[in-house]
Amino acid sequence: MAQRFVSERNLKFLLYEVFDAECLVRYPYFSDHSRDTFDMVLGTAMKLGEEILYPAFQEMDRKPPEYADGAVRVHPSVKAYMRASGEGGWINAMHPYDAGGQQLPYMVFSACGFIFCAANYSLSVYPVLTAGAAHLIETFGSEELKRAFVKNMHAGKWQGTMALTEPDAGSSLADITTTAEPADGYYRIRGQKIFISAGAHDGVENVVHLMLARIKGAPAGVKGISLFVVPQRRINDDGMLVFNDVTCAGIYHKLGYRGAPITQLAMGDNDDCRGFLVGEANRGLAYMFQMMNEARIDVGLSAAAIASAAYYAALEYAKERPQGRKATEKDPTKPQAPIIEHADVKRMLLFQRSVIEGAFSLILQLARYTDMCRVTDGAERERCELLVDLLTPIAKSYPAEMGIHAVSQGMQCLGGYGYCDEFPLEQYYRDARIHPIHEGTTGIQGMDLLGRKVVMKNGKAMALYFDEVRSTIQSASGDDALSACADELEAALKTLEDVTAHLAGIAMKGEIELFLADATLYLELFGIIAIAWQWLAQARVARKALQGNPSESDSNFYNGKLAAFRFFFAYELPRIAGLARRLRNSDGLTVAMKTEYFED
Amino acid sequence: MAQRFVSERNLKFLLYEVFDAECLVRYPYFSDHSRDTFDMVLGTAMKLGEEILYPAFQEMDRKPPEYADGAVRVHPSVKAYMRASGEGGWINAMHPYDAGGQQLPYMVFSACGFIFCAANYSLSVYPVLTAGAAHLIETFGSEELKRAFVKNMHAGKWQGTMALTEPDAGSSLADITTTAEPADGYYRIRGQKIFISAGAHDGVENVVHLMLARIKGAPAGVKGISLFVVPQRRINDDGMLVFNDVTCAGIYHKLGYRGAPITQLAMGDNDDCRGFLVGEANRGLAYMFQMMNEARIDVGLSAAAIASAAYYAALEYAKERPQGRKATEKDPTKPQAPIIEHADVKRMLLFQRSVIEGAFSLILQLARYTDMCRVTDGAERERCELLVDLLTPIAKSYPAEMGIHAVSQGMQCLGGYGYCDEFPLEQYYRDARIHPIHEGTTGIQGMDLLGRKVVMKNGKAMALYFDEVRSTIQSASGDDALSACADELEAALKTLEDVTAHLAGIAMKGEIELFLADATLYLELFGIIAIAWQWLAQARVARKALQGNPSESDSNFYNGKLAAFRFFFAYELPRIAGLARRLRNSDGLTVAMKTEYFED
Repeated sequence: MAQRFVSERNLKFLLYEVFDAECLVRYPYFSDHSRDTFDMVLGTAMKLGEEILYPAFQEMDRKPPEYADGAVRVHPSVKAYMRASGEGGWINAMHPYDAGGQQLPYMVFSACGFIFCAANYSLSVYPVLTAGAAHLIETFGSEELKRAFVKNMHAGKWQGTMALTEPDAGSSLADITTTAEPADGYYRIRGQKIFISAGAHDGVENVVHLMLARIKGAPAGVKGISLFVVPQRRINDDGMLVFNDVTCAGIYHKLGYRGAPITQLAMGDNDDCRGFLVGEANRGLAYMFQMMNEARIDVGLSAAAIASAAYYAALEYAKERPQGRKATEKDPTKPQAPIIEHADVKRMLLFQRSVIEGAFSLILQLARYTDMCRVTDGAERERCELLVDLLTPIAKSYPAEMGIHAVSQGMQCLGGYGYCDEFPLEQYYRDARIHPIHEGTTGIQGMDLLGRKVVMKNGKAMALYFDEVRSTIQSASGDDALSACADELEAALKTLEDVTAHLAGIAMKGEIELFLADATLYLELFGIIAIAWQWLAQARVARKALQGNPSESDSNFYNGKLAAFRFFFAYELPRIAGLARRLRNSDGLTVAMKTEYFED
Repeated sequence: MAQRFVSERNLKFLLYEVFDAECLVRYPYFSDHSRDTFDMVLGTAMKLGEEILYPAFQEMDRKPPEYADGAVRVHPSVKAYMRASGEGGWINAMHPYDAGGQQLPYMVFSACGFIFCAANYSLSVYPVLTAGAAHLIETFGSEELKRAFVKNMHAGKWQGTMALTEPDAGSSLADITTTAEPADGYYRIRGQKIFISAGAHDGVENVVHLMLARIKGAPAGVKGISLFVVPQRRINDDGMLVFNDVTCAGIYHKLGYRGAPITQLAMGDNDDCRGFLVGEANRGLAYMFQMMNEARIDVGLSAAAIASAAYYAALEYAKERPQGRKATEKDPTKPQAPIIEHADVKRMLLFQRSVIEGAFSLILQLARYTDMCRVTDGAERERCELLVDLLTPIAKSYPAEMGIHAVSQGMQCLGGYGYCDEFPLEQYYRDARIHPIHEGTTGIQGMDLLGRKVVMKNGKAMALYFDEVRSTIQSASGDDALSACADELEAALKTLEDVTAHLAGIAMKGEIELFLADATLYLELFGIIAIAWQWLAQARVARKALQGNPSESDSNFYNGKLAAFRFFFAYELPRIAGLARRLRNSDGLTVAMKTEYFED
């Protein structure tokens, strides 16, 4: 049996009790679904997690992809899982029936994604990348492109990728230099890409790159970037797959996340690489942002999921490992206590839980907004879209950054064993560290939040967000057990308003560098408050449930929820005081720091 | 040439300008030394670091120790470095001439240790462990034991270890079960030890374990623990080294720190393991604490040193890597800027520097107290001893915990490359993670600080510590550029006093579990303030130096110091607000948390 990596009880609590996923089935778009179909989908996901994903978790790390002569050999589970994902309809599950999908709510799909990532993050990414790439073609591509590529991608036969980064353009997409020269019905592509996840491997027949490049003569910077489909192998006139002059030049050896090959690609070495324009020329970055935003939320989900797996490994150890005695027990002949009885260990476990369940709740909150976008229009739809836009950098970065600390505390629960590879914590610790880096570093997310999202549409998204949080505060403030925390959240919101106004004042004076200098801290402050909001919402549900005479096991679950909620407000929310203090002090310390002062 | 891993300029700044190491030579004990001999020692350490340690840094990680049939094969550098350490007098450098040492100040030796650990942490531990073990024999052992073991240990021919941990007694030494049965001039040892660093390897002729065991019939708990010398091979009547029935049963495969074998040992499988009692029976734990306290400070030093190496790798990258443009530069045809010009990257670099140089300053502060213990007596000596005792858990845990964050921020500066093994950051990230675990976890350090050190002798050490910090505050408050920070440090001290009094009140009521429940947070709060103290002391020196028309390069150095100082006060010290808020709220949240609430 697989070690436990996720709590189905918690997933269902969030889906049904907090976010009322069932309410969606009242809308025609989701009307074929029901709680039963959702449960069935979750059950299937658990089965996949336990039978295909988790069993390969450790081995894919110990035997990472191998590169030789342009080919990348991956673990056999990749082929099996891509096939299972295709056959099970997972790659296209959220899309409309007429695009071959199942119109599954994003909320339910996110819960499944959480299971997959917790079971084996490296393996989980292959179909997810494919889904994102296929979705780009579906949304912006011509009918011909759709016919040529999407079906095999949805079937799990062809891998999809997101090919952005170049040797001299990582975080700075304005500087990509891959070129596209118009030819007869296609573009001739030349250039290099690096850090392309699953950019070549033998678990599929073909790899389809959704690639950014510049059409010759296009404007400099981001306004001259176009999006192309660049397959590793193209279909020739006889309907055969032939080499398309996309070569894998190597793979990276990484700290973790080792089951997925991160590749370097060279296009057009033989001047025979064909790419196919997606949508209009020079609009590539806007198109790609659709995939990037999905990918960013998915990073947050993955980070929380890895931390979940680490938490359950730590919890199991803490329950079974006897060590030491309570501070009040001085008799050394008494048996040792399981370490879960030590307050400091409980603190570490509650910390993990408060991060993981708070973060995943925020992910589901965004999924709920996304689902509502499909079934509403006009102002309500715009509201949901704006909230997703605003909260995407938080949903990416809070789990990414705090997930590392959660995993680290999980490792700490195991002491020396946590550092050794006979337990899985050390692998989770390595795997988790990718998340603040890929799909836009935490620094980039901070600038996106403060420099773009907070100020967009004159702060409309922010205003909508405050309304959302205040609505939760109001609904909780009638409960005596929650009202103190509701007040604290209101005070935190005021702090956020205050800090935002202070920073906006700097922006108004045109001091843009100073305005953005501590954007990473602003992101952290914003994130802590967003998670406090999610905990208050969960606590309200748990309180109500406890009033309804729950079973003993339900009662334990809800009491655990309330403990994690109180923990977050007692230990985590107070951290905003230090952050706010710094953010209010715009002394320009880092802006003014001269490069030569780093010399000595 | 080795990549840079340490700043000699900073080491000398701290040694000579902040801590006035030269003043020691006025005392007879250190009177053979001078600034010249100190500089020569430092130069030799740099040479060792660059020529022996750093060149093996990566390879020892990639080719970790191999275990087969009871033997452990280590990298050939181990033998070379142990020999060099013995021949160079490093293993015994700090000890008196009559014990074969060089009477080198601990301050100077610490600076050398920092160089060694930064160059190659795994390799650095072999002689350090040997020194600690030999020192235990010298301090508490009989003349016969000294004659039999110490010389070969000081020569680097025999490895020393600290053999405490057992399968069922990690953090709980009260529960060790290894037994010692009196025999003819020795004790017959039976038992198992785990996680013993360098417990067996082929880089030396013999391994000498300083081992805790219970003499048959001894009282239960820590009062029945005795200390033994248990060599892997003993000298027989013919003066030959013969097997002493200590078997290495295996080694651990670890996240990092891979160059040093962490072993499992079995003693007395053939009923022929001889151990030799050190000092008196049942006083073993008190003796061992000498070595543990040294080892704990050494962990802090190592953690800061690894972070130093990571910092210089990140700094070098940041200076050379062009990526993006300033927020104010909208023209994409302009060349990209080196990332060190981005405020967020400067923030990450200053963070690292503020942690590393603040932490190592505290280590040297303790080294200075230790040196003063050798040349003073009476009240002054007691004062220095108490300050070392009080601050040891801080000197261990602050660098251990914050060093991880510093290394992680270094990795973040490199983006995707930081995650790949073509740069050294990923190895530093793995290596650094051991420090909050070994030589007493952070949780143990917190309980040691709050439950033992703060309250010892009616709070005498605390009072002495406050005097020390306030003396620094007073000397800085006359400088207009420092007085605001001096005031902030005074306010922080008041917060610490306040929190301590609150917790002491709980202890007085006998609620010991509640008193200690957040000891880890208390440790963190205490640590941040201690590092702020060290930064204020450094800033005062830098300010004075800048007033004396320094050279351009000195001016850059001192201005960099002031920037890191201001950074610490602006970004790190404010974190105490959130910690204090939690510590003042003794709601017993974790104490009350029931184990069954973790079920779901």
